[in-house]
Amino acid sequence: MNHCHDSLFMRALRREPTERTPIWMMRQAGRYLPEYRATRARAGSFLDLAGNPELACEVTLQPIDRFGFDAAILFSDILILPHAMGLGLGFAPGEGPYFDRPLKSPSDIAALPMPDPIDDTGYVMEAVRLIRAGLPEATPLIGFAGSPWTVATYMIEGRSSKDFAQAKKMLLAEPDAGHQLMNHLADATAAYLAAQVEAGADALMIFDSWGGVLSPRLYREYSLASQQRIVDRLKKTCPDTPLILFGKGCGQHLELLADSGCQGLGVDWTMDLSEARARVGHRVALQGNLDPAVMLTSPEIVAAEARRVLASFGDGPGHIFNLGHGITPQVDPENVAVLVETVRAASSADNQA
Amino acid sequence: MNHCHDSLFMRALRREPTERTPIWMMRQAGRYLPEYRATRARAGSFLDLAGNPELACEVTLQPIDRFGFDAAILFSDILILPHAMGLGLGFAPGEGPYFDRPLKSPSDIAALPMPDPIDDTGYVMEAVRLIRAGLPEATPLIGFAGSPWTVATYMIEGRSSKDFAQAKKMLLAEPDAGHQLMNHLADATAAYLAAQVEAGADALMIFDSWGGVLSPRLYREYSLASQQRIVDRLKKTCPDTPLILFGKGCGQHLELLADSGCQGLGVDWTMDLSEARARVGHRVALQGNLDPAVMLTSPEIVAAEARRVLASFGDGPGHIFNLGHGITPQVDPENVAVLVETVRAASSADNQA
Repeated sequence: MNHCHDSLFMRALRREPTERTPIWMMRQAGRYLPEYRATRARAGSFLDLAGNPELACEVTLQPIDRFGFDAAILFSDILILPHAMGLGLGFAPGEGPYFDRPLKSPSDIAALPMPDPIDDTGYVMEAVRLIRAGLPEATPLIGFAGSPWTVATYMIEGRSSKDFAQAKKMLLAEPDAGHQLMNHLADATAAYLAAQVEAGADALMIFDSWGGVLSPRLYREYSLASQQRIVDRLKKTCPDTPLILFGKGCGQHLELLADSGCQGLGVDWTMDLSEARARVGHRVALQGNLDPAVMLTSPEIVAAEARRVLASFGDGPGHIFNLGHGITPQVDPENVAVLVETVRAASSADNQA
Repeated sequence: MNHCHDSLFMRALRREPTERTPIWMMRQAGRYLPEYRATRARAGSFLDLAGNPELACEVTLQPIDRFGFDAAILFSDILILPHAMGLGLGFAPGEGPYFDRPLKSPSDIAALPMPDPIDDTGYVMEAVRLIRAGLPEATPLIGFAGSPWTVATYMIEGRSSKDFAQAKKMLLAEPDAGHQLMNHLADATAAYLAAQVEAGADALMIFDSWGGVLSPRLYREYSLASQQRIVDRLKKTCPDTPLILFGKGCGQHLELLADSGCQGLGVDWTMDLSEARARVGHRVALQGNLDPAVMLTSPEIVAAEARRVLASFGDGPGHIFNLGHGITPQVDPENVAVLVETVRAASSADNQA
């Protein structure tokens, strides 16, 4: 039996009753924390930090030490994997990520190497090992990757995009190349995630940040199908490791995601958890979904809105409290402390009532 | 009886049978057209163009002349109205709109003047008059405005935003000021739209570009409620003028929008029209919803995807073909010609079958 098998987070993912609702936050190791900013300043660039196992471990543990979150998540980036395929990742200050060598044609896709999780992303696996060793035994560690479609948008556009015109154009005009790219990324991602489990990750999460910009047909054919391919692989390689799928702006596809065989669904803040639950029933656990903008207000408002999220999920097992998206740099850590306290107190009172 | 009462567009809005599906495109008077770029170059800035009734009329008519669209839409901007409230609108090249004097506090909101549609935006009404006089009699002219919430995001943030943190913070932390701002904008917008009808607009449209970034509670309380206030006003001042509500990323709220009393709903490309129709029945007409990215591909793909949209709506009246969002500058006008031809040919074949 795994060291954190009986943790609140793992039990909630199995939809087992818990004394209270577990809580963690997407991007909890981030710039809103002064100790993160200090480590980052020592490291240099974002890539220097994500590429250094000791420092990645240090920042992963910071929010656990400070707030006692019920899960840790590997400090890394969804673009580490295409970086390992040789596209040359960089981060322009204030502008986000870019690739030096974006995919320009079907032949670029055909030439993409299949990275070896150990040889090419060994520093990630080393970070996982260090974090797992440094975490309290009962605190689960979440490993993660980006969804093939989301990662592909950056690989094709070369950077963040507003309309994803080039990436969508490829799916529409070069469907064979599009499927080839999705399959390649799905296979690489499945191996990358399995290696994270091998190194010590207790649960996994796939971030589909841009699935919501696709038409329903393209969503099903590319984003969903490639995530399904990963789920199916992981069922064979890591059958005991629960998986959470998070599709930002993908509320309309919630039933399809719940049918994938994953254990949990991340829900962004644009759908009430009551509706999400009504739509997917008890097939999966739900993770979310406070609007990150709430964290910029006062302790009183943070507490009131957190209670609203708990009430929206309602009674019964299977809720992991989180924001509906990553926490932003401007948040006062004091508001995070209030959030954690509120969720703990309110959900344990509920569960004893 | 109005000159264009029996046009395809007006009949489709009333869910009456039509020989074929009417078509127009959001942002059809735009940078993808060389004749638009020529007029724009003569005008100077975007605001010089939107502020000059003769030139605004000229660009509004260009896509009608070239493609014979089934409706024209006033060339203007959703920020003209807050500009008339003294916020000082500008457009930074490549960066989008900004306000010199954004709203910083509840007292800024309390001090907002109520613009007079004629005294303060008379140039818009003059443009409407000129366009109406220049259009073929049977071609309807659509007047428009932004939704109060969408306009408010720019007024508070001072520019386009990625996370709308300041605007959301105001709704959460200063709900009284938030409601005051929504009511003020709704009243100003209702008067502004009624004046467009008085000047010659045959139908109206409200663009809620950013309703989809709100939680369901804030959406209902601010974006939807303020749009409802406009709908209720217009039912009294312009009872015979049909109104289309377009909420980008608001698919989850479609039933609520259909219950507002509007005649048509714009649907973005992230929901199939078959689903939209199943959800709202025949209460309203549906306008949409080809992904604008399709327009960047080949004539063959444009034609195939257009047929897919027509098939998704299916048989029966009440469909106005459009893109799911505005056409982008990089589109080849030849693809627009193919789109128009395809929709005309395919939908008239369908309706004779």
